[in-house]
Amino acid sequence: MNAEIISVGTELLLGQIVNIDAAIIARELSALGINLLYTSVVGDNPARLEDAIKTAINRSDLLIMTGGLGPTDDDLTKETAARVAGKRLVMHEESLKRIMTYFNQINVSDNQKKQAMLPEGAEVFINNNGTAPGCAFQTANGMTIIMLPGPPSELEPMVKESVVPYLKNGEKSTIVSHSVHIYGLGEAMTAQMTADLMEGANPTVAPYAKEGECFLRVTAKAETKDKADKLCAPIIEEIEKRIGNCIYSIDVDSLEETVVRLLMEKNKKIATAESCTGGLLAKRITDISGSSDVFEMGAVTYANRIKELLLDVPHDTLTEKGAVSEEVARVMAEGIVKKSGADLGVGITGVAGPTGGTAEKPVGLVYIALSDGQNTWVTKRSPIGRTKSREWHRHCAASQALDMVRRYLTDLPIEM
Amino acid sequence: MNAEIISVGTELLLGQIVNIDAAIIARELSALGINLLYTSVVGDNPARLEDAIKTAINRSDLLIMTGGLGPTDDDLTKETAARVAGKRLVMHEESLKRIMTYFNQINVSDNQKKQAMLPEGAEVFINNNGTAPGCAFQTANGMTIIMLPGPPSELEPMVKESVVPYLKNGEKSTIVSHSVHIYGLGEAMTAQMTADLMEGANPTVAPYAKEGECFLRVTAKAETKDKADKLCAPIIEEIEKRIGNCIYSIDVDSLEETVVRLLMEKNKKIATAESCTGGLLAKRITDISGSSDVFEMGAVTYANRIKELLLDVPHDTLTEKGAVSEEVARVMAEGIVKKSGADLGVGITGVAGPTGGTAEKPVGLVYIALSDGQNTWVTKRSPIGRTKSREWHRHCAASQALDMVRRYLTDLPIEM
Repeated sequence: MNAEIISVGTELLLGQIVNIDAAIIARELSALGINLLYTSVVGDNPARLEDAIKTAINRSDLLIMTGGLGPTDDDLTKETAARVAGKRLVMHEESLKRIMTYFNQINVSDNQKKQAMLPEGAEVFINNNGTAPGCAFQTANGMTIIMLPGPPSELEPMVKESVVPYLKNGEKSTIVSHSVHIYGLGEAMTAQMTADLMEGANPTVAPYAKEGECFLRVTAKAETKDKADKLCAPIIEEIEKRIGNCIYSIDVDSLEETVVRLLMEKNKKIATAESCTGGLLAKRITDISGSSDVFEMGAVTYANRIKELLLDVPHDTLTEKGAVSEEVARVMAEGIVKKSGADLGVGITGVAGPTGGTAEKPVGLVYIALSDGQNTWVTKRSPIGRTKSREWHRHCAASQALDMVRRYLTDLPIEM
Repeated sequence: MNAEIISVGTELLLGQIVNIDAAIIARELSALGINLLYTSVVGDNPARLEDAIKTAINRSDLLIMTGGLGPTDDDLTKETAARVAGKRLVMHEESLKRIMTYFNQINVSDNQKKQAMLPEGAEVFINNNGTAPGCAFQTANGMTIIMLPGPPSELEPMVKESVVPYLKNGEKSTIVSHSVHIYGLGEAMTAQMTADLMEGANPTVAPYAKEGECFLRVTAKAETKDKADKLCAPIIEEIEKRIGNCIYSIDVDSLEETVVRLLMEKNKKIATAESCTGGLLAKRITDISGSSDVFEMGAVTYANRIKELLLDVPHDTLTEKGAVSEEVARVMAEGIVKKSGADLGVGITGVAGPTGGTAEKPVGLVYIALSDGQNTWVTKRSPIGRTKSREWHRHCAASQALDMVRRYLTDLPIEM
């Protein structure tokens, strides 16, 4: 099945927003084994939109349109698609009720109500995060057209909850995907180590890069979920054998979520002492709902004076070794354990840049320490290759700290 | 002049990456007053790419292509565009030299060298952040084709340093843009208050939404930069008159950068005490290079025990009023000023969700306090309208804290 996406909206052509919708849909189509051949963007212009839809009908089996379903006069997607496909728009009573309820029954303009007008015979996708419903319908020549609201906060759940099941339904087979998340091994090396597995057709294996980490997506198709899972299992096992303990999770999406879950499981509490990451590590841990059960405190000790005051970093260590040093990272981690009474403490100190680097301590040099009150481990990040941004150095330092905690909690060697 | 963008790369159609390039280019074209009518994505497939280029040549005056300039066999953009336009590819010696230098002259494969092959007569755009140069050339029918490398870290500086000047050059006029950044007034309200200004042709005024804030872009075209600036000035003045002190900056891109600059100017130091934002405020302040001069310390006091230990929040206040209360925010701000010796202290406590909300203290309720050691101000955020994400509540709470600091430092009323 060949698919294409048309995103509708002048705001995309003005660069006011990035087309995240297309990437969200593309990823799900890829997991479903549907070939996406084109994506395009057209403005809120009926003539150009009509041309684009006609072109799509001539070359694709599935057209997914995003945006232009809202209440304003600029929102033309449904009207144009229905006209090209020769369908009438009819009022969908349940959607109308939802819209009335959304606005507490008061002051609902005709434009707002217009959002409940859908092509006759369409399958309706309920919008749990906004007012405009999505829908799918067939054209006379057997093509499927799906229309989805533009805001990613509405589109993404609708794709997962309604569109994927709808597309699977047509197939009589089930598709299952699992993600193998990897830290400490680049995408290129990961791809190289699993090159033969990527040649398989069922399951398929595909690598994805993520800021400073990567993951492999294993996707299988079978009659039932159970059978698809059974196809995936030996491939995941083989990947685990090859990549080993650089795999931090199967299907858990981030290092911070993995670490928060592990801390809960092991009933351990953590505290952080950050210099160059400036609170980013605490922020990432507390991004996870429920982290309050395992996160005790974070200290952002930017000034040296505060490192002494709050973490008892010895004045002499700071002056002799410098704030960016293995020793200071170590005493920061030990200091925050003492201060907080947590089971584990992390200390991070480094040069995030872009200024402040020297020949001896260049931008990108970071020391990261983990202490459990008895033992302390320190790792070092050194800048390699091309100049990277302040944001990059900070993100990677926080990731490495999280990975050290993961390794500690799963009895793996910590100093790589 | 009508323009379109074709992004080349199967990775875009698999959803492995988001098409940021198109948004970067779209924004610059909009500022240049060039109409972008279409953007599209095609995979690394010569036949479909050729079709797309032919379609573009028939309907647009300017075609910008991104991606597919690299060393692998999949990289077909130049070969295909040159073939369609009837141009030969010739070796560009200076680019070849740059590539050899990039690889220290050793082991440079023919594929790497291929990147220096460019359409004859093309204007070459040097790549300071990678190996593949960009270029621009004219087709027989007078259309301009620009080809740029795919990675945004290479494309974005090339667009700003080379493509914008190249496109301006054809015009004999200069284009200048200024951004008026606004906090505390939504995009819809801002647009309504400046609706008549948006009808102007020179300068143009366009609103852009940003997570919880918005900005107006004022763009003028004239013979010289000076003249264009003079066209913008009265419009910006008029906007300032209408929007007033919700404007936090002209041309300074974020609240955190505005606040760090103000703190430097006024020679004041700040410290933060965060509960529900979990380090996000400290992280945003320290995102700004040079913030170490004004940021003393941050405390992430997640556990109540730590609020007492570190900030001297009275035990009775915590039990009587609850951790999420005006009183606790107040003593957190006052506590961190005392602890750190900074001039200003911020305290934030609230319910970020998605769990932990009650009827009395719902998800989204946040108290934010600012203290200068003598006076303390507290503001409250209440959830309104649709359910928002944990990330949203945390981001907006941190933004509000930054805006309170800005208001303090510029002698504006703090409690809105």
